Amino acid sequence: MREEILGKFKKCASKVSDKIDSDAFKRGKKMGEGADGTPTKLIDQVAEETALDHLLENTDFSVLSEEAGLVEQEGDGYVIMDPIDGTNNSILGIPFYSISLAYTPVDLSEVEVGYVKNFATGDEYYAIEGEGAFKNGTSIEPIKKTSDNTFCIYLGKYALPKSGEIASRATRVRSLGSAALSMCMVAEGVFDLFYHRTPEKKKSLRITDLAASTLILREVGGEVYEGEWDILEMGISPDERKDVIAINDEDIKEELS
Amino acid sequence: MREEILGKFKKCASKVSDKIDSDAFKRGKKMGEGADGTPTKLIDQVAEETALDHLLENTDFSVLSEEAGLVEQEGDGYVIMDPIDGTNNSILGIPFYSISLAYTPVDLSEVEVGYVKNFATGDEYYAIEGEGAFKNGTSIEPIKKTSDNTFCIYLGKYALPKSGEIASRATRVRSLGSAALSMCMVAEGVFDLFYHRTPEKKKSLRITDLAASTLILREVGGEVYEGEWDILEMGISPDERKDVIAINDEDIKEELS
Repeated sequence: MREEILGKFKKCASKVSDKIDSDAFKRGKKMGEGADGTPTKLIDQVAEETALDHLLENTDFSVLSEEAGLVEQEGDGYVIMDPIDGTNNSILGIPFYSISLAYTPVDLSEVEVGYVKNFATGDEYYAIEGEGAFKNGTSIEPIKKTSDNTFCIYLGKYALPKSGEIASRATRVRSLGSAALSMCMVAEGVFDLFYHRTPEKKKSLRITDLAASTLILREVGGEVYEGEWDILEMGISPDERKDVIAINDEDIKEELS
Repeated sequence: MREEILGKFKKCASKVSDKIDSDAFKRGKKMGEGADGTPTKLIDQVAEETALDHLLENTDFSVLSEEAGLVEQEGDGYVIMDPIDGTNNSILGIPFYSISLAYTPVDLSEVEVGYVKNFATGDEYYAIEGEGAFKNGTSIEPIKKTSDNTFCIYLGKYALPKSGEIASRATRVRSLGSAALSMCMVAEGVFDLFYHRTPEKKKSLRITDLAASTLILREVGGEVYEGEWDILEMGISPDERKDVIAINDEDIKEELS
């Protein structure tokens, strides 16, 4: 069943990709036809509508989505979706924006299928619980690092001064604007760490941002933490928000603790 | 003559792009065949050799390149080149690495042709002095911003705590790892500001990083500053390094001064 769900996620991502790449959408985007007149909102709306339609037609799971909240159906379990993670990147032409889709019977701790696709590059990351994580069909083997550590740090408006201490230990820092993709790249070993901390609660992360990439990272032996190195726990809620540190190597936890 | 130089730059970029995308190169990269055994060095070497060969065969200008330094020829003027800006991104699979090529008869203040190509996406940015700046054949019209400001900030190992003050005024922060491309995106209006400051002198920027994108930015009315808002000046030297702030809107200078 889990392979079947993964197949539906792939199809769902294709539908959204086709939609936001379509000429009709691009014309609309130029005209700023979103409900509030901004192209940012327009792409979120169109992507969510497309993905939600597909999932409600093709599965009987309830769907938790970033904008629509929880849409209940009669089946057991939940699809947790962020139709566009990195909306601002998509508007600005930064090739880092993705869909994030996860299936869980209960909550974050039991995610069974996770799927993230970078719409700009076509790269697909996915995992089935207990069966490993994959990128474009190939098993993810975290790359070996040299003495350089490349830390990826999310920098919110007020997060920057606070993240100085952790960043000063990194050789390089990137801030790419998509949590789901950044965490997949921690799984790959491209980044050693993904760090998201902000005093602005509404800029913290939701389960819709995290569910798929958390499984992908766990399947290569990594982990996502909240607070003082507690394993991240999140329920099926559109409102819960958390600051996180994600790593794929326990040595980094030792070093930073 | 300037259009002819631009044509040679485009051809040069294609040659480098073909080379680093070739199967032979990719096999070599996997094997870590660089002089010091690292793929980072290998791509820099291969790109520089390819670009330098093309430029020395097809122009009579002296060439200042990141790795090779100044290679003199009998013609008047200089090509200033960074064969791969964003080497680490290219190795790590982050779609942000470019070639930067500029022509000047004298120094940074008189650059006449600037060309930057993102090898990962194929996007080409270029400008001819006095004739405007272009992206993929279309005149760059900086996008109108909403109340959101997206600042792009280079974050070196120790730069982060120091950049906190300026970053706290931004709505969003990105750190993408290629100065040339980031500055082109300031020209486009994607970013309001590019800020590079580090106490590690060897991580400051060289004319090879800056020459092409400085002209592209100037041609849309922007400017690059050093120190306390002095217009950036750099000579033909592989050793001179500067910290910079680049903006395309003088209002931002007023706000930050």
